[in-house]
Amino acid sequence: MPEFFNVLPPDEARALLFTHLSHRTAGEQVVTRAALGRVTAEPVQAPHPLPSFRRSTMDGYAVRAADTHGASESLPAFLTVVGEVPMGAAAGITLHTGEAALVHTGGMIPDSADAVVQVELTQQMGEGAPFPYEIEVFRSMAVGQNVLQVGEDVRAGAEILPAGHLLRPQDLGGLLSLGITELRVAQAPRVGILATGDEVVAPEVGPRPGEIRDINSYTVGGQTQKAGGVPIYGGIIPDDLAALQEAAEALLATTDMLVMSAGSSVSVRDVTVQVIGGLGEPGVLLHGVATRPGKPTIVGAVGGKPLIGLPGNPVSAMIQFDMFGVPAIYRLQGLSEPPLRGLVWARLAQNIASETGREDYVPARLQPTAEGMEAVPVFGKSNLIYTLVNADGLIKIPLNKGGVAAGDWVEVRLF
Amino acid sequence: MPEFFNVLPPDEARALLFTHLSHRTAGEQVVTRAALGRVTAEPVQAPHPLPSFRRSTMDGYAVRAADTHGASESLPAFLTVVGEVPMGAAAGITLHTGEAALVHTGGMIPDSADAVVQVELTQQMGEGAPFPYEIEVFRSMAVGQNVLQVGEDVRAGAEILPAGHLLRPQDLGGLLSLGITELRVAQAPRVGILATGDEVVAPEVGPRPGEIRDINSYTVGGQTQKAGGVPIYGGIIPDDLAALQEAAEALLATTDMLVMSAGSSVSVRDVTVQVIGGLGEPGVLLHGVATRPGKPTIVGAVGGKPLIGLPGNPVSAMIQFDMFGVPAIYRLQGLSEPPLRGLVWARLAQNIASETGREDYVPARLQPTAEGMEAVPVFGKSNLIYTLVNADGLIKIPLNKGGVAAGDWVEVRLF
Repeated sequence: MPEFFNVLPPDEARALLFTHLSHRTAGEQVVTRAALGRVTAEPVQAPHPLPSFRRSTMDGYAVRAADTHGASESLPAFLTVVGEVPMGAAAGITLHTGEAALVHTGGMIPDSADAVVQVELTQQMGEGAPFPYEIEVFRSMAVGQNVLQVGEDVRAGAEILPAGHLLRPQDLGGLLSLGITELRVAQAPRVGILATGDEVVAPEVGPRPGEIRDINSYTVGGQTQKAGGVPIYGGIIPDDLAALQEAAEALLATTDMLVMSAGSSVSVRDVTVQVIGGLGEPGVLLHGVATRPGKPTIVGAVGGKPLIGLPGNPVSAMIQFDMFGVPAIYRLQGLSEPPLRGLVWARLAQNIASETGREDYVPARLQPTAEGMEAVPVFGKSNLIYTLVNADGLIKIPLNKGGVAAGDWVEVRLF
Repeated sequence: MPEFFNVLPPDEARALLFTHLSHRTAGEQVVTRAALGRVTAEPVQAPHPLPSFRRSTMDGYAVRAADTHGASESLPAFLTVVGEVPMGAAAGITLHTGEAALVHTGGMIPDSADAVVQVELTQQMGEGAPFPYEIEVFRSMAVGQNVLQVGEDVRAGAEILPAGHLLRPQDLGGLLSLGITELRVAQAPRVGILATGDEVVAPEVGPRPGEIRDINSYTVGGQTQKAGGVPIYGGIIPDDLAALQEAAEALLATTDMLVMSAGSSVSVRDVTVQVIGGLGEPGVLLHGVATRPGKPTIVGAVGGKPLIGLPGNPVSAMIQFDMFGVPAIYRLQGLSEPPLRGLVWARLAQNIASETGREDYVPARLQPTAEGMEAVPVFGKSNLIYTLVNADGLIKIPLNKGGVAAGDWVEVRLF
């Protein structure tokens, strides 16, 4: 079978893959407290408003705003404090004209009050409690001032989270504030990972001359975990079409996605193309991406599930999996796009050559300087996993740039 | 006890806390494959060089470079291919002058070879195998060309990871490539979390008028998990000095760090100060940070363990825990600084007012536009957890800025 190359820029390649990814993991019910990093499987509505009663945002006195009208330092309003609203209790007090109630931050305010005057803007006339006692108020209060209204945080029935939302700490807090102690999330995608190559042995094995230990299964496995997936290690398969085809079919049948880390020689890559092509329709979508490292990546789909054939070089494999595998894992959970990723801007310490028409990724170490971060490229062949171990992130050199010069500002994507 | 305020800028406050954090979690042995996100407890050395044999980086022919000296398109060198080095096997071939061996990418090269000429720079003279057969070589090769040398990735005995290194996918790959299938990491810090406030009830409980459900325990718990810690929920303690003191002592005895999410009224904050002060030396380090939201944060230490008293407002609590709690959790694991965090640069959609001398954090939603990201501030009182739920990150307004204007570029810290 002849090797064919249909080399696309990464964004187009990813878009092509995404048009074929109809498969989604099923939903499951989980406890909200343990749902960090999971993705909502359906929209969530507020069962009641938040807050569900009017709360003071200050320590002070609940008042009828009209009673303070025109009050100032020189001409205070005089009010009678008739009682206190304890924290955690209903405000059982009714305020008549000229009356106020002592309230605490977060406490409920009486029905008949419509503002809170903070304690610093008042002065007690005598000793204070026992109630009633008199206060002077030195400021004219507006209706609603220092009061959280019912539903000001969330209205009853509002959609608080859409489907396909990645749950962060504040989302857990927001759900629990409304008493939503369980919710439906996408099951974690099971990502099948196969290594191939007659030279590849398991990490536990002492390699003989000519053999190397499997790296890619575990870098890809770590990337999978970070994206919310579960790596299912299918082991190391000999460079044999029938064996690989059988292993790939079996693993894909019980997983949501299949990744094959090919050996590095051309013949092995051809076998990967054949295997992916033989799994079903549409099969291989593209073979080759306009990036360095990682050009000979194979991207495919079958039955709406993503299939990815990675180059054997560990640096290429990791960068390519980040480009296609990670977004696909989020997609399987119902996120249309992976979560935004921050960048670090840094000044480049050395020139980097590139070719236009290709997106280059260069590992870099970041070091703080007086003028901000400096990015020091970690050069090395893409066979060298320690170029990534010794780097903090990747400098991306866009498609249309022919290199970057020392002193230029570059964006570094953190690992 | 009078309330005292010792308000420091956040960086100085954090530095002060760090000078008192001598406590570290113990080490434990874990399986490398399951060590993602853990922190190394001791330096790791390479037990052998990587690669441990000389490998070809190309599909082609292992040669003696001297045999190709002066070769060109018009004047090729003629070599005899005497055999093939199969993948995964030792190179059993000895090359004599004028001889070459067929090799594959990643394969071992014979002892007597010192370069690899890629197949594209050669031409077979006849049918190829069976060996021997003749090739023409069209390029003069340098010694070492297309060869990975022994130890080129890592030298034997080199420190591959220092102590206090947060393990990423590539680090797992790097360790396993050397057969390091287990390693010693810091135990995950146990972070004790207490909620206080007579108005606060557990999320499972239907709150009565005046009551609210506990949010802060779970936002802080989620932040703890993201930083590699284990939240130990100590429940909700009444606003009573003795009860709180007893609960805090008991929880701190079995955890590495204590967080108290105080009720929001001044009296409750005073109690938190007293409790932290009563736990031991040095106790309260500072009470108040020059930030908004979150000024009345209490930071302390006892026996080298961090103690944090958070404001009751959920937005303040989360932002303050990010500022002090998250770095402290990493510190407990032996990381001197939390991992670098990326930023998103965005154009501000609306003016934001601020005061100089205070660091402001404003929640913002990010939306893509033709000119890049736009940051839309999510305004709202710091009691409103949904300002954070509806935001993608925080805009930081530095100490010395009196606000930012619509159209300005701002940095957004993603959650």
